[in-house]
Amino acid sequence: MKRNMLISDSLVAQEGDVVELLSSGSKFFILTLESGKELQTHRGIISHDDLIGKEWGSKILSHKGSQFYLIQPGISDILQTTKRNTQIMYPKDIGYILIRLNITPGTKIIEAGTGSGSLTQALALFVGDEGHIYSYESREDMLNLAKKNIARLGLSERVTFFNKDISVGFEGQTVDAVFLDLPNPYDFIGQVKSSLNPGGFFGTILPTTNQVLRILTALRRYDFQQIDVCEILLRFYQAQETKFRPVDRMVAHTGFLILARSVANLNDAESY
Amino acid sequence: MKRNMLISDSLVAQEGDVVELLSSGSKFFILTLESGKELQTHRGIISHDDLIGKEWGSKILSHKGSQFYLIQPGISDILQTTKRNTQIMYPKDIGYILIRLNITPGTKIIEAGTGSGSLTQALALFVGDEGHIYSYESREDMLNLAKKNIARLGLSERVTFFNKDISVGFEGQTVDAVFLDLPNPYDFIGQVKSSLNPGGFFGTILPTTNQVLRILTALRRYDFQQIDVCEILLRFYQAQETKFRPVDRMVAHTGFLILARSVANLNDAESY
Amino acid sequence: MKRNMLISDSLVAQEGDVVELLSSGSKFFILTLESGKELQTHRGIISHDDLIGKEWGSKILSHKGSQFYLIQPGISDILQTTKRNTQIMYPKDIGYILIRLNITPGTKIIEAGTGSGSLTQALALFVGDEGHIYSYESREDMLNLAKKNIARLGLSERVTFFNKDISVGFEGQTVDAVFLDLPNPYDFIGQVKSSLNPGGFFGTILPTTNQVLRILTALRRYDFQQIDVCEILLRFYQAQETKFRPVDRMVAHTGFLILARSVANLNDAESY
Amino acid sequence: MKRNMLISDSLVAQEGDVVELLSSGSKFFILTLESGKELQTHRGIISHDDLIGKEWGSKILSHKGSQFYLIQPGISDILQTTKRNTQIMYPKDIGYILIRLNITPGTKIIEAGTGSGSLTQALALFVGDEGHIYSYESREDMLNLAKKNIARLGLSERVTFFNKDISVGFEGQTVDAVFLDLPNPYDFIGQVKSSLNPGGFFGTILPTTNQVLRILTALRRYDFQQIDVCEILLRFYQAQETKFRPVDRMVAHTGFLILARSVANLNDAESY
Repeated sequence: MKRNMLISDSLVAQEGDVVELLSSGSKFFILTLESGKELQTHRGIISHDDLIGKEWGSKILSHKGSQFYLIQPGISDILQTTKRNTQIMYPKDIGYILIRLNITPGTKIIEAGTGSGSLTQALALFVGDEGHIYSYESREDMLNLAKKNIARLGLSERVTFFNKDISVGFEGQTVDAVFLDLPNPYDFIGQVKSSLNPGGFFGTILPTTNQVLRILTALRRYDFQQIDVCEILLRFYQAQETKFRPVDRMVAHTGFLILARSVANLNDAESY
Repeated sequence: MKRNMLISDSLVAQEGDVVELLSSGSKFFILTLESGKELQTHRGIISHDDLIGKEWGSKILSHKGSQFYLIQPGISDILQTTKRNTQIMYPKDIGYILIRLNITPGTKIIEAGTGSGSLTQALALFVGDEGHIYSYESREDMLNLAKKNIARLGLSERVTFFNKDISVGFEGQTVDAVFLDLPNPYDFIGQVKSSLNPGGFFGTILPTTNQVLRILTALRRYDFQQIDVCEILLRFYQAQETKFRPVDRMVAHTGFLILARSVANLNDAESY
Repeated sequence: MKRNMLISDSLVAQEGDVVELLSSGSKFFILTLESGKELQTHRGIISHDDLIGKEWGSKILSHKGSQFYLIQPGISDILQTTKRNTQIMYPKDIGYILIRLNITPGTKIIEAGTGSGSLTQALALFVGDEGHIYSYESREDMLNLAKKNIARLGLSERVTFFNKDISVGFEGQTVDAVFLDLPNPYDFIGQVKSSLNPGGFFGTILPTTNQVLRILTALRRYDFQQIDVCEILLRFYQAQETKFRPVDRMVAHTGFLILARSVANLNDAESY
Repeated sequence: MKRNMLISDSLVAQEGDVVELLSSGSKFFILTLESGKELQTHRGIISHDDLIGKEWGSKILSHKGSQFYLIQPGISDILQTTKRNTQIMYPKDIGYILIRLNITPGTKIIEAGTGSGSLTQALALFVGDEGHIYSYESREDMLNLAKKNIARLGLSERVTFFNKDISVGFEGQTVDAVFLDLPNPYDFIGQVKSSLNPGGFFGTILPTTNQVLRILTALRRYDFQQIDVCEILLRFYQAQETKFRPVDRMVAHTGFLILARSVANLNDAESY
């Protein structure tokens, strides 16, 4: 039995499982186990058949004698290795979005644009079987890649994909949250408001301050509340106890996160 | 019907619901609706009975005429207002922990110490009905506070509390992840390893570099892999389109996050 | 003999010297020694006469027995205690400006607006006897305060003050560098260009991104080169060897620094 | 006449001048003008003779027609292009050191180790003709490189170099400030204290927290006061008015700066 795609109650890896092989120096490989196949690495070849049936956490040796560990994949490692043809979202930003948009089991959320589906994967993992993702992408090639990435994790039932430009509106869903990963989210705030349950959560990520200025104006026009703009900076350290120090270089900018809550429209009947 | 504690499918607020009242200037109040009670704010009084039966997203006026919005609470707002008698964990750190420790629906996790239960609340929301938290705290007063905080969210069934010093070991659970929020996590890495499923996730947060040096040594002794040390910095901006700028002051440090994967012991039989 | 205002070759403090009294916990006081006067602190009273003639570095006791050290003042401590009625510039920003604007001995620089003269003090210290500051401020009360602050350091001869709105232009000086500390530096880039030696250095500091967008446009219109926009973040640590960690809170934003080089005008004869 | 090495009162570039050629995209070249020589760039060749006698700020065309500007070099550009065989110090750190160590005209300072002389150059520029640098380096090849770098700027008279291991002490100078750029500054704090005027300034830069812990212990042993540990982070922005945003990647760590003031020894006679 599987509690979810990334947590198997089986003690051993099985055919069809998405697994992670951890090598030295924090290098790793993510693969779907298929009898007869081989993983080629510069540290040697590993046969999938040598992994199938092996206990989680086992040490594995490649044909060259290099050492690997067989583990169930971490979400952030999955995201990092997602096949993509665009910029993907970073775990640091996704983690904060989960918290700020209440992406708990059962959440229904609209996402546009899908891109390679990296955020889609994370959302699908966190909303569970009762939640659902409605994911919009105008480019068909992108959408097909995203579908493959979601299928790899066995999460296809949790996501409905739309190959559609959202300027003509969403497909009538009413959801708890909307996340836009588009260059011009400010053009769609009307649609967002119509699709959100009252009090619903809105989020977007934008690289430039110019875009932020425009989304702020749009959010105020539609009377969004609790509007926050922030950045998440993630700083790694060299994990050496005798030479503990920050690493030399870091990702300095992925985007500004803009978060807000939708409330009843200005022209709604007021309460007294 | 409730999909989870924070997402009601009902369109209106009901007695017993935990609700959020959003005021101007991003101020907010979190309360549990109880007929006959009143919320006192410096912007006027609001009767719970005026909220019960009201649609989510409604505008509410206090007796002084100040304007509030009735919404379902955001997790980060809940965490921020959790009753506490210790330092609590910040949403920025919790979000990244969710991603790095794979805290998806169904996850089973050990947490120690519970403290006021702020992380406990977040974990309980994200693991869903199939997941479970085993939470250890040696101080009884703390534990009672944490229990109240969890009960307020209706999540008591997802958490088993232990009023116990973990130096004598955990209670025999085997889990997917362990998070230690203690000053001396390096003293318990043996217990952690025994309790983790092979490949399981470990995390801790520590304020000083001296503590980080010690945990790194302990993690290596028990052959933990993919050891990462990092910091999350969250920078807010003034959300004004004509004066867009970072805010003047920020939280500069909450703690170093240390993350690692447990693998089979050194003395385990090796695979060839 | 004094090599400069802050480095006396005398081994002892003398009447008229600007001195620093260092107390425990990195608290300090800056005062000008005057026979007969007293310094009142919450750690007790210290008579100036007890300081005059004392060696630099001496330990001094207040009438309550609290311990102080008598030292020559550090520039950053002077800046921090400058009497002011506006926001002053921070040492972190001034230090980088010194490097980027080549503020070495002999430099001639225009500064506007003077404000309380905190940057003026730093510039006057660094340009030496051969350099000069032309400092413009439209508010007379400000300018008088700045003059007092400069006089305290004995640097009045290095600065010419103008109580003047710079929208009517500068007073005909040609200088190596111009620094504008004004809300609307973009309105004066023509004047700046006229006053700068060819190749001269321009700098400004602006709190909002909106202002940065406008200065970028203005600098390009006047064909400025090597335009850089940056921020300096200064993070302090608790200097405790057993609990070494970043401090809890920090200044997150003072302003964006904009730096550029002036070159010959577009309509200048070109070289072949 | 030259006010200093980087500020010529001549309106035109002359043989022997150190000049900067600014190309598009903030690329630049630093060269010493010598009749008959040529600068080879991938944007074409420029003859030194075409630069000699040209006004500062002039636009220059290479033989390929690429455009350059002739300017006097900025210190930070000089530092960035200093010939080196070690890690050099960054302008962001040097600027703050200037402020915190009072490196104004007339300052006398000991520096060890010299390395390629990048800090030495900056110090020599800022101390002026009345100041002096005593610079220690145990590796002869390094020292020779540093000497060449200093000579290029015409600053040789401001620096005395010592090819010497400082573990045997300094050469008897008494100075206003000491800066150590060595892996083990904590081994030399006794020598530092002996060489500093009472109240003198000490600074060092260290990459790892482990080193910081050791220097803190050493500084306390010798009763240094006002001990600060900090980091300077420099974040650049894309200077585009339509796409204004932080750059993608940044230098995340150069070193921790440790700053302190020397005071009279513990066993000195106390004042009452």
